[in-house]
Amino acid sequence: MRAIRNLTTGFLFFCTAIAVLAQDPLPSWNDGAAKKAIVDFVKTTTTRGSPQFVPPEERVATFDQDGTLWVEHPAYTQLLYCLDRVPVVVKARPELANVEPFKTVMSGNREAIAHLSEEDLIKIAMTTLTGMPVDDFRAEVKKWIASARNERWKRPYTDLTYLPMQEVLKYLRANGYKTYIVTGGGQDFVRAYAEATYGIPPEQVIGTAIGTKYGYDKDGKPFLTKEPKLILDNNNAGKAEGIYLEIGRRPYAAFGNSTGDQQMLEYTKGGSGARLAMIVLHDDAKREYAYGPATGLPDTRVGTFTQALYDEARKNWVVISMKNDWKKIFAFD
Amino acid sequence: MRAIRNLTTGFLFFCTAIAVLAQDPLPSWNDGAAKKAIVDFVKTTTTRGSPQFVPPEERVATFDQDGTLWVEHPAYTQLLYCLDRVPVVVKARPELANVEPFKTVMSGNREAIAHLSEEDLIKIAMTTLTGMPVDDFRAEVKKWIASARNERWKRPYTDLTYLPMQEVLKYLRANGYKTYIVTGGGQDFVRAYAEATYGIPPEQVIGTAIGTKYGYDKDGKPFLTKEPKLILDNNNAGKAEGIYLEIGRRPYAAFGNSTGDQQMLEYTKGGSGARLAMIVLHDDAKREYAYGPATGLPDTRVGTFTQALYDEARKNWVVISMKNDWKKIFAFD
Repeated sequence: MRAIRNLTTGFLFFCTAIAVLAQDPLPSWNDGAAKKAIVDFVKTTTTRGSPQFVPPEERVATFDQDGTLWVEHPAYTQLLYCLDRVPVVVKARPELANVEPFKTVMSGNREAIAHLSEEDLIKIAMTTLTGMPVDDFRAEVKKWIASARNERWKRPYTDLTYLPMQEVLKYLRANGYKTYIVTGGGQDFVRAYAEATYGIPPEQVIGTAIGTKYGYDKDGKPFLTKEPKLILDNNNAGKAEGIYLEIGRRPYAAFGNSTGDQQMLEYTKGGSGARLAMIVLHDDAKREYAYGPATGLPDTRVGTFTQALYDEARKNWVVISMKNDWKKIFAFD
Repeated sequence: MRAIRNLTTGFLFFCTAIAVLAQDPLPSWNDGAAKKAIVDFVKTTTTRGSPQFVPPEERVATFDQDGTLWVEHPAYTQLLYCLDRVPVVVKARPELANVEPFKTVMSGNREAIAHLSEEDLIKIAMTTLTGMPVDDFRAEVKKWIASARNERWKRPYTDLTYLPMQEVLKYLRANGYKTYIVTGGGQDFVRAYAEATYGIPPEQVIGTAIGTKYGYDKDGKPFLTKEPKLILDNNNAGKAEGIYLEIGRRPYAAFGNSTGDQQMLEYTKGGSGARLAMIVLHDDAKREYAYGPATGLPDTRVGTFTQALYDEARKNWVVISMKNDWKKIFAFD
């Protein structure tokens, strides 16, 4: 009886497999060079007998997060988190209320906050992101990410992921690729929501990382505390170095959207065989934003997409135009 | 026709599954508290409905390497590699021939080599393990590991893995656990052979890590060079910190054999639910070695297993006696 049920399950599985094969894996993409590059890459690297076949264990694909997987305007989400945390920190340490840059943040003066220096922002990050047990930090981020809302769309930040990129993540995984986030943002911050948001587990999130300190609580149980000590600056060349440190393999596919991703894309493309390097161009002022070489919006706080990078991209990589290549941008559209 | 073949495959799979269930997953283990602890842990954490059930994505098990997965006497394998590399480095940089500690190594005086200081060994490690492209390093280690032989057994080091531990790795993986090596040894060194030797891919090897430097070759292709800059000292508390950095989850099971593993075992055991912490006691002078609290052989170059650690282990963890718990030690026995 059980054997018969098993046989039936096998047959149903077979039918489902056929149905899946017939579906377009990237329905939110318009037909064009970008979509074709992805489909061709997957076919050539996963078809047995293909001269560019890649063994399953070597299938690694890396994705920048801010501006590549979700909206990075008006500022990196992590920065908004840090600013939101300042009142909590000041409540616990009242002496900070009269010290800059905390005084400016507490004033609520948006104009002044927008003009804080890089150094001020690092001070705010170190104060709001370190000094607590790692489990407390993760719980706080989870709570914040569930309640915070983006100003323009009045939705949780996790709703603002790009549907076409979510499809790429799923399509690659369905073809045996391990998908990684490789972000200039904080590794711990992104790990707190990446599994629920992208189906990417913590061990597949590589980001800017700070150290931890081992200690014991009052019951003698060990725990780790976040320390203000930089271990990995996961930007620019740091992305290639971070990939080597935490994966130890050169990716076969990489996706980015700014100069911070340049070396990751070059490093990926520099490997032998079929390699895919793609860069998202924000050229859709209506449905999202237009900035960088596309036009308009000046790049200040967000990763820059310079003309030089655009030239390199058009020569060596594949450019994704949000305006032309994406049928839909968000799942809620 | 294809559907029928699929149904047959399904049925065969079913039969195989039944056969596997009936087999002892740990045939090289004698019945006893250690074997029972492993089997009970797997059952309680992977049986749906069990109050201590662990979701598949959280199933992480970490293993020290030297002395836990393979023989660590007469010295860590990586040290032997470094000593073997000295003549190659001296050939490329002849000025080192008259500089200590390279002069002593080149003399071949085994007594003098055995008495090199910690500082000398670090100097040798930094000189032989850095300064080359990461791909060259990996290729060199693979070549060496294929040809080098252990003195006592006259076999490749990769033959000297403990069969009972190989069974534990496979048993845990068959039950949805991701198995990691967490070694005080060099991350890059162990990654070069871990996949072939233990079925553990590079991204699941965490070890003492140095930095890399991004650059371009004469054709403009990017590559990484190993730099003499310590990023992660993966020993003692560093093991818990390394696990947090590269996995971001607390393990459910951990295996070690020395004070360098103490914090990893404590950190694992400190989590909620069913957690397994096991420590290998080298008490088999005949089939392998006896050292640490077991008796005899003094611990100098190899990780120490102190009496204090033994007391902590007997109280909180499970001790594996090589002599009593292991029916066979090596696959070639």
